[in-house]
Amino acid sequence: MKKAEDFGEWYNEIVEKANLTDKRYPVKGMNVWTPYGWKIMQAIDSHIREEFDATDHDEVCFPLLIPEDQFAKEKEHIKGFDAEVFWVTHAGLNPLDVRLLLRPTSETAMYPMFAVWIRSHADLPLKTYQIVNTFRYETKQTRAFIRVREIHFFESHTCHADFEDAERQIREDYDIMAHLSRRWCIPYKLLKRTDWDKFPGASYTVGIDTVLPSGRSLQLGSIHQYEENFSKPYDIKYEDDKGEHRYVHQTTYGMSERLVGAIVAIHGDDKGLVLPPDVATNQVVIVPVLAKGETQKVTTASRGLYEELRRAGVRVHLDERDVRPGVKYYDWELKGVPLRLELGIRDMEKGKVTFVRRDTGEKSLRDRARAVTEVQTTLALISREMLARAQAELDSNIVTVDTLEGLPEKIIRTGWCGGEKCGHEIEGRSERNILGMPVDDEKFTGSCVVCKKPTHIPVYLARAM
Amino acid sequence: MKKAEDFGEWYNEIVEKANLTDKRYPVKGMNVWTPYGWKIMQAIDSHIREEFDATDHDEVCFPLLIPEDQFAKEKEHIKGFDAEVFWVTHAGLNPLDVRLLLRPTSETAMYPMFAVWIRSHADLPLKTYQIVNTFRYETKQTRAFIRVREIHFFESHTCHADFEDAERQIREDYDIMAHLSRRWCIPYKLLKRTDWDKFPGASYTVGIDTVLPSGRSLQLGSIHQYEENFSKPYDIKYEDDKGEHRYVHQTTYGMSERLVGAIVAIHGDDKGLVLPPDVATNQVVIVPVLAKGETQKVTTASRGLYEELRRAGVRVHLDERDVRPGVKYYDWELKGVPLRLELGIRDMEKGKVTFVRRDTGEKSLRDRARAVTEVQTTLALISREMLARAQAELDSNIVTVDTLEGLPEKIIRTGWCGGEKCGHEIEGRSERNILGMPVDDEKFTGSCVVCKKPTHIPVYLARAM
Repeated sequence: MKKAEDFGEWYNEIVEKANLTDKRYPVKGMNVWTPYGWKIMQAIDSHIREEFDATDHDEVCFPLLIPEDQFAKEKEHIKGFDAEVFWVTHAGLNPLDVRLLLRPTSETAMYPMFAVWIRSHADLPLKTYQIVNTFRYETKQTRAFIRVREIHFFESHTCHADFEDAERQIREDYDIMAHLSRRWCIPYKLLKRTDWDKFPGASYTVGIDTVLPSGRSLQLGSIHQYEENFSKPYDIKYEDDKGEHRYVHQTTYGMSERLVGAIVAIHGDDKGLVLPPDVATNQVVIVPVLAKGETQKVTTASRGLYEELRRAGVRVHLDERDVRPGVKYYDWELKGVPLRLELGIRDMEKGKVTFVRRDTGEKSLRDRARAVTEVQTTLALISREMLARAQAELDSNIVTVDTLEGLPEKIIRTGWCGGEKCGHEIEGRSERNILGMPVDDEKFTGSCVVCKKPTHIPVYLARAM
Repeated sequence: MKKAEDFGEWYNEIVEKANLTDKRYPVKGMNVWTPYGWKIMQAIDSHIREEFDATDHDEVCFPLLIPEDQFAKEKEHIKGFDAEVFWVTHAGLNPLDVRLLLRPTSETAMYPMFAVWIRSHADLPLKTYQIVNTFRYETKQTRAFIRVREIHFFESHTCHADFEDAERQIREDYDIMAHLSRRWCIPYKLLKRTDWDKFPGASYTVGIDTVLPSGRSLQLGSIHQYEENFSKPYDIKYEDDKGEHRYVHQTTYGMSERLVGAIVAIHGDDKGLVLPPDVATNQVVIVPVLAKGETQKVTTASRGLYEELRRAGVRVHLDERDVRPGVKYYDWELKGVPLRLELGIRDMEKGKVTFVRRDTGEKSLRDRARAVTEVQTTLALISREMLARAQAELDSNIVTVDTLEGLPEKIIRTGWCGGEKCGHEIEGRSERNILGMPVDDEKFTGSCVVCKKPTHIPVYLARAM
């Protein structure tokens, strides 16, 4: 299946052939993380942990089950989720007094505890996160990593003395996403959702959106300003330095296993996965090219190179299987290993090693003596170029228009006055959803595509994957 | 509360004061992992991952929810668990066609997939593990880490061509436990459970038991030989090299957050936690002892020492809070940091640093110039001595007897012919459970305490925590 011909089919096939997940588990939308997919997810989790630990967030782990009465405290929130939660009603042979739900997200698990933890301004800001599985009863068609019912999930939850400090947190979250996107080579836009599309209970929501090769959008995560919307029903108060009791302001930041889906979808090609060097389980694979009579020499040299790279901190695999090199090339291309080193006797005699980049297919001869440095700089270059190409691809998938008729299968950029009536008309006529307006100062000169009122902020419309 | 006076109360108080978990979550037996407790759990998880990765196990992650019909396939297994599972019966507003249960353990989630994954002898052995939360509706009194309803859980699951290869796996599991116990400074015994106390569905079960200061036993984990008990109902077959289809033999190895409980219970003292150096979030804390006029010198020296240790790979914290050193000593003793370094101007002038061991309270002056080496050797010494003391404590808590009358509150070692009738009589008269017979060749000369038949293997009896 070719990526350019049928993106959806290609995606399903690549996920299966690279053995990232197994969809044959007998509950629909609940997939098995096979070893290779799980390693990629764990690499992503470790990047997230590094960023959030470095910004003084504490990792916690809250219970999965939430009592119905706690869940029901914030009215918008329960309205947004009650059609898609799983309910535990029995334990052993007996019905439970209070029904328990499987967290679809953890506000209602965490906030009763935050109310107990926070006493004074000295307890603020409270910055926590957890990496857990969440559960949503999806009724749309499921798709590996993109739309599932058991979701591997990251969520940070913070409490602040006032709105301004919560806003500072949201800017920190933007910075964190910028760092992470460089490691994952995933470009994105930060788009403020409409009021009718924000997270249930949020004061506002910023979507972290990327674009798939199909021209559809994929939400990678979202950042929410809650103000006092949850702290009031959950009674999360602190005593300020004047002795007055005030409600905290809260924010959250969520991302999920969709990140794996985005990496597969954006970077993969007709040969298989193309993993960013920071994400790859093996950054480098060494394939000895054995010629008759020279087997021992090449084997020894390959093992020496392997050890050298390993000691330098490169995640390297030496493929000594007894199969033809071509078979190995095929396998590791499918698995997306960023850099292949071929070691043959003729190259060796010239003091050289053959480098083959997975992302471009480019072959080059490098000095064996400088192999460690060459590998490190090549991996860094691959990472930069993968992001740059993906960014160019994203940009080329955005079309600025001043009409809603005859729209291409791309992300649409146009003018919107911001009014709800015009917004609904835009969504209806374009048969797309408004993703939102960019949070940065993106230059735009135009007018609302419906009411023609001039505006200096563009709006983005898309169909979701 | 003194540990020697009321162990149970002391345990609860230490867990709360050191802030390892929060039991105030509104579902009984489902506790919140607070940052400090979670870091300790993650350290333990990372040790488990290292051991199982090094022995060619692949980490996977299976779904939480198991359909009722898959769960019901192995008759003993369902009998053992159906009184303690949580049932999901509704999704959104609708009842489910097939009820789903929250895994109490993952045999019945994994084995339908193993049946699909395994085709030929080339797929064997299949060695997998996962670290997930499991759920059991405990009706006994809950206790942090020791008996909870949401359980942080490790489970390995392996499939083998025959019984002998499965037995080899079990011996590998024993070796792994030996390595881990040295890192955790936790002594244990491997005791083969009675037929009436084995895991539901197992052919035999080996308990990994330790002893608490109260003289009660605590099961840290267990290792199971399943033979073909699950592979037959789940139809997990492979084609052998003669083209014949045979059922696989299976083993499992499980451990849980009880390991945290054991570390707290065995090593803690009246001042708080005492963490093994490999488990400790901070292995070393540096406390600058500031004298008037010399503040800057001591601060600079402390930061220098901190950097030196950090670069050497020691997990070190520099406590620069503006409180008296005594307050810092108290806090870090409560948190169980293995080694405290006090840096004062008088020691500095002599080129010395004061080392204070958490486990023994022992103070000593060491050369500043050799500080990194001194820290490393002291941490290694602490680790060895903590295990040795715990081993001596465990040994002293075992009493060999030839009567069942007037038994002390300790682990009881006596003779048993192995017969079921005598076994039940032993349990009844001693008011204890048989933990089992040791799997190693422990020397014993005696006779069954009931029927007086001579035996060369002892049996261990205990009350569980």
